[in-house]
Amino acid sequence: MVLNVVTISGSLRKASYNTALMRALPELAPSNLHLAEAPPYDGMPLYNADVQAAGFPGEVTTFADAIRKADGIIIVSPEYNWTIPGGLKNALDWVSRLENQPFREKPVAIQSATGGPLGGARMQYHLRMALTYLNAFVFGTPEVFVGLAQTKFDPHTLELRDEPTKRVIADQLAVFAKFAARFKG
Amino acid sequence: MVLNVVTISGSLRKASYNTALMRALPELAPSNLHLAEAPPYDGMPLYNADVQAAGFPGEVTTFADAIRKADGIIIVSPEYNWTIPGGLKNALDWVSRLENQPFREKPVAIQSATGGPLGGARMQYHLRMALTYLNAFVFGTPEVFVGLAQTKFDPHTLELRDEPTKRVIADQLAVFAKFAARFKG
Amino acid sequence: MVLNVVTISGSLRKASYNTALMRALPELAPSNLHLAEAPPYDGMPLYNADVQAAGFPGEVTTFADAIRKADGIIIVSPEYNWTIPGGLKNALDWVSRLENQPFREKPVAIQSATGGPLGGARMQYHLRMALTYLNAFVFGTPEVFVGLAQTKFDPHTLELRDEPTKRVIADQLAVFAKFAARFKG
Amino acid sequence: MVLNVVTISGSLRKASYNTALMRALPELAPSNLHLAEAPPYDGMPLYNADVQAAGFPGEVTTFADAIRKADGIIIVSPEYNWTIPGGLKNALDWVSRLENQPFREKPVAIQSATGGPLGGARMQYHLRMALTYLNAFVFGTPEVFVGLAQTKFDPHTLELRDEPTKRVIADQLAVFAKFAARFKG
Repeated sequence: MVLNVVTISGSLRKASYNTALMRALPELAPSNLHLAEAPPYDGMPLYNADVQAAGFPGEVTTFADAIRKADGIIIVSPEYNWTIPGGLKNALDWVSRLENQPFREKPVAIQSATGGPLGGARMQYHLRMALTYLNAFVFGTPEVFVGLAQTKFDPHTLELRDEPTKRVIADQLAVFAKFAARFKG
Repeated sequence: MVLNVVTISGSLRKASYNTALMRALPELAPSNLHLAEAPPYDGMPLYNADVQAAGFPGEVTTFADAIRKADGIIIVSPEYNWTIPGGLKNALDWVSRLENQPFREKPVAIQSATGGPLGGARMQYHLRMALTYLNAFVFGTPEVFVGLAQTKFDPHTLELRDEPTKRVIADQLAVFAKFAARFKG
Repeated sequence: MVLNVVTISGSLRKASYNTALMRALPELAPSNLHLAEAPPYDGMPLYNADVQAAGFPGEVTTFADAIRKADGIIIVSPEYNWTIPGGLKNALDWVSRLENQPFREKPVAIQSATGGPLGGARMQYHLRMALTYLNAFVFGTPEVFVGLAQTKFDPHTLELRDEPTKRVIADQLAVFAKFAARFKG
Repeated sequence: MVLNVVTISGSLRKASYNTALMRALPELAPSNLHLAEAPPYDGMPLYNADVQAAGFPGEVTTFADAIRKADGIIIVSPEYNWTIPGGLKNALDWVSRLENQPFREKPVAIQSATGGPLGGARMQYHLRMALTYLNAFVFGTPEVFVGLAQTKFDPHTLELRDEPTKRVIADQLAVFAKFAARFKG
């Protein structure tokens, strides 16, 4: 069964390790997992109910549409101040206000990369809670934490070079594919 | 001892109950607590290390300066999707990157108002964690949760009308004033 | 489809509002949800790997067996110090060490009652995280929080008397029955 | 200024890495930090208000007394199922019911050791929240996470052998000594 999965990076900078990690996923995924990057969310204004009253910004509805059409989501995000980056949270805040809330009953896996050794455990925690509230089917284990990211990606091309990390990721994607298949159709 | 305290609302809409709650604080505070609203953060771009590399936006440094000068901070915020609003988190993400991180060793109290009955407990939780990471002195109890906010504020003027809520707030502010005084000078 | 659901109370005292809430569930559940109370966990020793090395206590394996056989679980618990009661957590710690970990792929809903107004939101949060780690299918919304419990139960019989609370519970149980049915067979 | 600090291990097994870590602290602490292990809590029954009504167990009051007399506390704990071990939580639940709650206004630092790479970040998180509720002064950063503990302690003597880990711990203890001194006298 083919599963169309949308990937989201929680970092907005160009040379982000998290975006690099997100881009490493297609080659590590089982063949029935078709991965595509979510539309950008970096042009969304800060959530404000007064702005919403004037109509949802186009970037919000485009982002939400991509999630609604997907059979699963993978979010790859840094941790800022022990929790979710404000920009990523802002995107969730926007789409959570849509009538047909897009994360509802979507299988979602989480990965994270950080320069420090911990690899983003606390961000994953809070993100799982927000997604549980949105009635997503939040994937549990195996988890993927890429600590000391600067030692695991090629400094020039940002390709993922670390073989043990690749195996952990391939493991998660294989288990996630079975998890997501449960909820399709 | 006079304590200059900066107040921050986590909501950006004009008729916000949280902003209304923030504005109700001066009349409920002990006389030595001088409250002033923080400069706006709604013009900050989404945090992006590439933008930071080109220089911190003026709104970030102005906001941070106000916090640095204060003897304490009170954050009054709604809860979005069981955690911190993205816009407020984005402001914290920005100031956390400054060299002289402004929340360091600042006493911080938290309040929240929501339309539902719970009053924002989960947001307060996550916000406390982010602030602990920033080495703020995070105030514990008594807590202030204003649930069913629509029944407690005047629908036209947004003045706080509920006497039991006022007493809870006055209690917290009195205890917080003593807490904050410990860290001054 | 009949669903056999095991209920667990997080409180050990006899006149517990949470145990009373747990006992109110059968009459509020849809007819296909068959509820039975979990075996006791109050005789489990504090978890200690040295004790485990000498063999799992009988109360641990009996408790785990009941969960393994169930089509779903409902945990009804107080909040102690903003998080999970130690006794309930101790039971989870024990069963998490079993080879055939019993919560794996079990649908789990959470409810809570407290004397204060909040109704246990923070306990629910942490409990959801522990259950996500155990690869349970953690139910999201609608949530059940019974705040000010002393006003909602008969002080003598501990019967649930509050009609709005009954409706909220019946709503959750109806949605949870559909959620749990997805994972059966 | 001499600071008497009580240390608590969250693990009950004899050959625990967390207990070994706790025992490594005295030689890494600044000379004014006098460390002593807390009395045992492994004989406390599971918290039950009916048991409390018959009188607090002696182990609870002895444990609480040691904390009350201390100028600071350091808790060194494993992570069980992404959160606080049930046994340690049970000890906190008991002492939280005492009239003169012992953690009130006590500076508390947290450390953790785990066999996995993360080192207990999520447990630290939840423990900080419980302590904030108890109105402790919860120490922020630098944090101590000892991941892959089996590579850092002597397998026979359980002495801490890893020099980088020792330096991180010594750093935390030095900063914590200054933090705790603020609250003494």
